Order: sequence, then C-alpha cells, then structure tokens
Amino acid sequence: MKHYVAVEDHTQKELQELIDLSMQMKQGSKTVSLKGKTLVSMFFNPSTRTKTSFDLAMEQLGGHNICLEPGSSSWGIEMEEGAVMDGDKEEHLKDATKVLCKYGDAIAVRCFPPFMDWEHEKTDPIMKSMVNWSNNPIINMETITHPCQALAMMQTLQEKMGSVKGKKLLLTWAYHPKPLNTAVANSAGVIASMFGMDVTVANPVGYDLDPYYTDIMKKNCEAAGATFEQSHDQDEAAEEADIVYAKSWGSIQQYGAFQKDVHDSNKDWIVDSSLMEKTNDALFSHCLPVRRNMIVSDEVIDSESSLVYEEAENRLHVQKAILAKLMGGV
Amino acid sequence: MKHYVAVEDHTQKELQELIDLSMQMKQGSKTVSLKGKTLVSMFFNPSTRTKTSFDLAMEQLGGHNICLEPGSSSWGIEMEEGAVMDGDKEEHLKDATKVLCKYGDAIAVRCFPPFMDWEHEKTDPIMKSMVNWSNNPIINMETITHPCQALAMMQTLQEKMGSVKGKKLLLTWAYHPKPLNTAVANSAGVIASMFGMDVTVANPVGYDLDPYYTDIMKKNCEAAGATFEQSHDQDEAAEEADIVYAKSWGSIQQYGAFQKDVHDSNKDWIVDSSLMEKTNDALFSHCLPVRRNMIVSDEVIDSESSLVYEEAENRLHVQKAILAKLMGGV
Amino acid sequence: MKHYVAVEDHTQKELQELIDLSMQMKQGSKTVSLKGKTLVSMFFNPSTRTKTSFDLAMEQLGGHNICLEPGSSSWGIEMEEGAVMDGDKEEHLKDATKVLCKYGDAIAVRCFPPFMDWEHEKTDPIMKSMVNWSNNPIINMETITHPCQALAMMQTLQEKMGSVKGKKLLLTWAYHPKPLNTAVANSAGVIASMFGMDVTVANPVGYDLDPYYTDIMKKNCEAAGATFEQSHDQDEAAEEADIVYAKSWGSIQQYGAFQKDVHDSNKDWIVDSSLMEKTNDALFSHCLPVRRNMIVSDEVIDSESSLVYEEAENRLHVQKAILAKLMGGV
Repeated sequence: MKHYVAVEDHTQKELQELIDLSMQMKQGSKTVSLKGKTLVSMFFNPSTRTKTSFDLAMEQLGGHNICLEPGSSSWGIEMEEGAVMDGDKEEHLKDATKVLCKYGDAIAVRCFPPFMDWEHEKTDPIMKSMVNWSNNPIINMETITHPCQALAMMQTLQEKMGSVKGKKLLLTWAYHPKPLNTAVANSAGVIASMFGMDVTVANPVGYDLDPYYTDIMKKNCEAAGATFEQSHDQDEAAEEADIVYAKSWGSIQQYGAFQKDVHDSNKDWIVDSSLMEKTNDALFSHCLPVRRNMIVSDEVIDSESSLVYEEAENRLHVQKAILAKLMGGV
Repeated sequence: MKHYVAVEDHTQKELQELIDLSMQMKQGSKTVSLKGKTLVSMFFNPSTRTKTSFDLAMEQLGGHNICLEPGSSSWGIEMEEGAVMDGDKEEHLKDATKVLCKYGDAIAVRCFPPFMDWEHEKTDPIMKSMVNWSNNPIINMETITHPCQALAMMQTLQEKMGSVKGKKLLLTWAYHPKPLNTAVANSAGVIASMFGMDVTVANPVGYDLDPYYTDIMKKNCEAAGATFEQSHDQDEAAEEADIVYAKSWGSIQQYGAFQKDVHDSNKDWIVDSSLMEKTNDALFSHCLPVRRNMIVSDEVIDSESSLVYEEAENRLHVQKAILAKLMGGV
Repeated sequence: MKHYVAVEDHTQKELQELIDLSMQMKQGSKTVSLKGKTLVSMFFNPSTRTKTSFDLAMEQLGGHNICLEPGSSSWGIEMEEGAVMDGDKEEHLKDATKVLCKYGDAIAVRCFPPFMDWEHEKTDPIMKSMVNWSNNPIINMETITHPCQALAMMQTLQEKMGSVKGKKLLLTWAYHPKPLNTAVANSAGVIASMFGMDVTVANPVGYDLDPYYTDIMKKNCEAAGATFEQSHDQDEAAEEADIVYAKSWGSIQQYGAFQKDVHDSNKDWIVDSSLMEKTNDALFSHCLPVRRNMIVSDEVIDSESSLVYEEAENRLHVQKAILAKLMGGV
C-alpha cells in the first residue's frame, strides 16, 4: 500500500486489515509511533471532522500535521499539466506537490470537483497527478471519492453488526438545496459491495451515480453472491434494509447546468420515521455535515439507531491506521 | 467546576482559586500536565490574543490545541434546535458539538452575538446549547460575556494593588466607529463587583448595559458594602477612580437598527490625559484590540499606568488555570 | 545577531555561518533544541513554502509555532504610529507586537508592500516598527526584501558549485500578469554581490530595481573584484551566465498607477530553452510559486539544471539555522 486514494484500488483483505488495525488502536491494544514524521494536509474546501481528526491522528501517533488552505491562506493552485499560467492561479500543483514532498512525509488532500465537466472530473485528475508527482504517500480526504469516510462507515457497521455479509445497505439520495459531490455515495456503495453486502442505491430519476461506480458495485455483489439494485422509489427500496445510509448528491446530467426547479421537485426524499418504519429495524448513518430536517429528520438522527457520531469518531481511528500503514512501516 | 462560561456562574472563592493557580503557574511554582489531552477551539470571529494564548496554554501544559474557523475553513454552523436547514449553514451545532466531543477533551468557543435580536441573544444560546449537548467542558472565549478576559483583569489588578476591595473601578464607555459587543463590559463589571470593588459604569445616554448585568453588579456591591453607580457623565465618574477600564459597546436600544449619527455624537468619550487627571492617580486598562486615539490616547495607553500588556499576558496564565481545572483534575 | 530582517544588515561572514549551520543541521551533524520556545508567525499574505517550512522548522527544533493571519482569522492591523484609528483596522501593530512578545519568543512576519507609495514603503516601515517595539527577535518572511529566500538560494548554489566567487548570476525579470513585489530580486542580487559573484540584473526599460539595492550590489561587486551590470536585453545578459535566477516584479515607476498595456508589452521576457542555450550551461532557479510557461517554460523548470525544489527544501534548513541562532543561543 503506497497511497490511499480510493477504496476500489485495494482488496477487501487490505481494507479489513486497516479496519482491524484501527480497532486495535481504538482499544489501545496496538500503538504505532510516527515520531519525527509530518503530514501536510491541504484543504481546497472547508472541513470540520476531517481537519480535526487528521490533526489529532498525527498528534496521537506522535507526529506532526501542517494544514494548508490553497487559495485562501496559501496560494491558488493550477492543476492542468502544461498550462500557460496567465489566469488567477499562482502555483502549479506539480511544484506544490514536489515542494511538500521535500518538507513532509505524506500529503493528504481535500479537493471537491468543480462540478463543471464530469467527463474530465471523473478521472480524478488531482489524485492521479499527485500520485504521479509525489515521492510520498498521497491520502484522499475527498475528491470524487471519499475512501476515509467509507472505511469509517465499514468499521462502524462491523462494530454494530459483526459481519456485514448478507446485510442490506440502502444508500439513499436525500434532498439538499445545493448539488453536492457524489464522492461519499460512490465510496460507500463500493465498500459495501466489497464486503458482501446486499446493496440498493435509491435516488430520483436523473440522479443515478456514474455507471463506473455502480458497475463496480454490481460486479462485487455478484462475485459475493449478494444482490445489487438501483431504484427510483425510496419507500420500496427501504424494505428489508438493515442500514439506511443517506447522502445527497448533484445530478451528473445537470453537471455544469444545475436545474434548480428539477432539483427542488425532489424535496420529499428525506429519511424520516415513516421511511425507517419500512426497514428491517435498520440502523441509520450519514457522513456529516448533514442538513437536519432536509436530509434526515431530527427524530431519526437523534434516535438510538443513529450511528453518525460513532462513524465520525471512527474517522479518527481509521485514519490513524492509514497513516500508520503508509508512514509507519506497519 | 464543569464549564467556564460566565463569571457569574461561579463563586468569588472559585474565581480566586483560579487566579491563585494562575499566579502559581506564572511563577513556575506549580505545574500541571495535560499530556494526551486535546482542546478544540472554535473561532466564529477573529482573534489575536485569544487564539495565541489558548494555543500556547495547551502547548505549555503538554497538550494539544486544534483551531477551527466555522464558516471559513470549516463548515457554517446552524445554531437553532429543530431548524429545517434549508439556508446557507451546512452543519448543526448539535452535531459539531457531539462530534468534537468524540475527538477532543474540551471545546472553547468564540461567537459574538449577531447584534440582531438582543432578547434572544442575551440568553447566550450558543453557550446554553453547547453545555447541553457536550460531555466535555465548554469554555467561553467571548459570546455575550468574556469570562477569561475578566479573570485576567482581576489577576492583573491584584498583582498591582494587592486586595482590590474598596478600590474604585470606573468602567467607562468610549467611542469606536462600530457598535461592539457588550461582553467585556458585562464580565468586567460583574467580576469587579464580586471582588468587593466600588464599581461605576459610565456611558452615554442610551448605552446602558443590560439591567441583567448591572443588577448583578449592584447586588454584589451592596452585599460587599461597596458602592455601585451608573453615570452618563464621564468626567464626574472619573473622580476618585483607582482604575479606569475602557471599553466601547453598541447600544442595546439600537440593536438591529444601528443609528450611526447618534452613535457618532459621542466621539468625545475618550480616555485621555485630561480624564486621567481627574482620577485618584488611576491605573488604566483595556482588553485589546483597541482603537488608539479613539478609545484611548497614545499618551495614556503608553504610560506607566497602563496595564494592557500585563493583562494580555495574564490571559495566558488564567487560561492555563482554567484548562488545568477543567481537564487536569486539579 | 538580534533580528533577521535583511541580508544587507549582516556581514558575509555572518551569513556564511548561518549557511554552515544550516548545512550541518541538514546533514544531521548538528542539533539544536528550542524546547519550550514559541515562534509566532504572522501572515498578512498567502504562503505555501514559508508557512510549511517555518512550522516544520520549529517542530524539528522541538519548539512550537503559532500561525496568525491578520485581517482574516485575526484582527486587521494598523501600522502607522500615532494614527487616529477611525478606519477599518482594529488593532495597532505596536500593541500586537508587544502582546505577542509576552506570549512567544520570536515573531516572524510576512507583509507585502501595498504597492501604493514606494517612497514610504521602501523604508520597510513594518520591519523598522516591529524591531523598535519588540523585545524578541523579528524575522522577515518577506516584506520589501526576502532574506530567508536569499539565504536558501545561496546555500543551494554553494551545494551545487562549491564557492560561488567569480560565477555569473543573471537575475532576470520575467513576465507575470500582475505587478509583483521586488523583494526576492532585491535580496537575491544583494546576497550574490556579498558573496563575490558577477551580478547582472536584466529587465525591461522602466523596470529597474530601486537604486538603493543596485547601488549595494554594485559596491559589493566592486569590493570583491567582481562585475556588476544592468541590462535591458535579456538575450545579451544571458551570455556566460552560470546561474539564471528568474523573478517577475512590478515597475517602481508604475507604483500606485499600474499600466497594464505597458506591462503586457513585455510578454517575451521568459526563461525558455532558447535563452538557456545562450548561457554557460547555466543552472536555473526561482523562489516559487512560479507561473509556468509565463516566467519559465516547463522544459527549463523540469530540466536537470533546475534547482527550484532544492532551493525550496533549503528554506527549511536555513530557517532552522536562523531560529537556532536567534532563539537557541547558538
């Protein structure tokens, strides 16, 4: 394991090893030292959990974290190779990457796609470029996938359910006033399929995830003897679900041309008690931040079935495992 | 002591114990270790002293500080319970609080009131909510009160005067082009009254502090056999003062409807040498940042009587005491 | 050595000692401890390298760095002594400096000139004021000079060339769409002249550096028996160069009145292969961030002759030496 960029780059066994290590570190039965090691974490977008948990992870491992905010407190970054830099970006990603490799021992990056051109953005150009230019491990803190979140979700499910094999995960779209990144949904569905869950992705017509990801999910489910379904009916999709994972995302078909009226016609996509009642007494989770009473009702997120805080806590532990693996020679 | 949210939540004895601990730590006769402990400090507003001194306090105690800036580098925060989050705030304070309790050991918060609806804001909703939702200690870095500043002021006065009992503190309004928070004034007046000082609050007509705070001051002064006065005449109020504490604040009557012309008619409210000459050879202080030659003349703030830098330094020491008390089992 | 504000404040011997110490620390043959020491680094402008390398420098030395961003996450700063602070700046530099001296052990500052009034700005008022008001060492992270960058450049040249005496440095202007600070050029030319290099400064007509700096260069070169030239012909100036140091800067004559059309008429000032071919097989460097294919072609910056990443790395090492010297009693 040289980088941690997307869950689908790894085997189920590798991911399980990370979860096992994370659980050991959480329980205190395993310690790893990154003394003298430095992570540089670059945030092109805001963060609460990710910033806090990566910083704390490095601190608890005995290392150091330096947090940069390109375009705000550090220079704006050009990403296209060969660009004639006559615009408003002061520094090329190539130079930033190569310089940060001279200072630190790994680079973590959050960079949401600009939602302009999915054909280009779906190639995850920033991750590809950084892996190409870096001597050091690169960690994805959310680009077009969110592999740290997915790992935290899986650890949380295993803590609650034991083996997740054969359990049904409903990954359901929910309404949010803005078109959001598909990253969390892509990674959540993929990791669930890798671990042998029955996966159902439910969303309004026109909001299907990119087939690149749903094809991976389908293939994994089939290989594991599990079911994979896509649905445009949230109520129906909820039946027999053991876990409801909510997330809003923008329509790929509306990429670069957001249709607010079409988007707003889906306001009834919410996870509330009446939806949860259709499930197999399902657990609920979400990556946070969440719009309360838009994505999920207070009643559901504040219920005993809600795993949101446990999943958020597990971000810390899985990231410690990832950092230990990539920098600590574990 | 579970939280440190307002001076009036504590007894004079508790506050004196914090000051004593602070003085011991300042002199190096007492050390406390917060090794392995993490403070998460959330700044909804800018800061120089508070950010630096809390960060340094955790470092000197052997712990770690993580600084978040909601709405800028971290997500915008919704504060109302039960809100339907269809606006521009991405995360609910309830979720942020509960998640940060999973990561750190205490949360410190700076969040100035929006100056829109004092009847609501005077309940200090953010502090009330966070104390309600948090398992961990909450520290107020300035909301509608500023208890850390007040404690630093009191330590500084004790260092200079010994016992402050019977000394006269003039808390005087001064002109600043913008309507500022009443927090520092509220807490400064209250702590002075708790420690048996004669308290005079002077401000222009229409700028009286909320009676909630002046009533506490009056009651405390009476209980201590000290005097409490409110004045609209700065010169008269300065007579016999042993300490002039300057602060500008916005008129509660103009809350949500700032009257620039009325406000600007009070430009003669400044602490300068001619005011200081009316006092009992008084000391001068201010919480900083201060508008020089608006609030106070260069001559006064740069004089030997000025305590502004000592008070700023004491922010560090009192905060170390507060952190040690709340997280260190002292 | 009490401060590190400009290379011309020091002797060549002092600078060489810093470079020697830096090289020893880089190789690990010398360690210095700043345990218990705190640097406060203030960024009025964005930074990638400087922020990361100063933070890492303090960490590696066992000390602590606190990073402030005045005007953004900390208060806006008034710099003029005696100012009546009725504008939008909340805090005076005098107070910020004196308070930060109460908390930390040194202050590092980045503050680009506002490009409004060169006669005033060329006096480097912020550095002069802070040195005046501070009890602690002040370090210049770029104002109207950039002495940390210059030291990193010199260390990198010595690593590549051994003695630089008698080698020709071409400091060449290059086109960038905005008028930039002259700081890097001022310091690069001065340090090269102090170390006995033949210095040629090439730039378009109307873009000469301030004579204050070119006079220092000339005097140093003469004293060392080296040549100093100023040229308006980039191709001619490149002849026999051993090192091409590229930098864009704004015209001092256009200070406060930027002439975009005049500026843009110099787009042919670029360091590309055809320019490099005119040199004595020269090395190339630049301080970064750099506009690729505006200042320098990809081909040149990505070539084996390019020192940009080594120079960036050496920022870390020279700054450790500076910090060790100023705070560590070395």
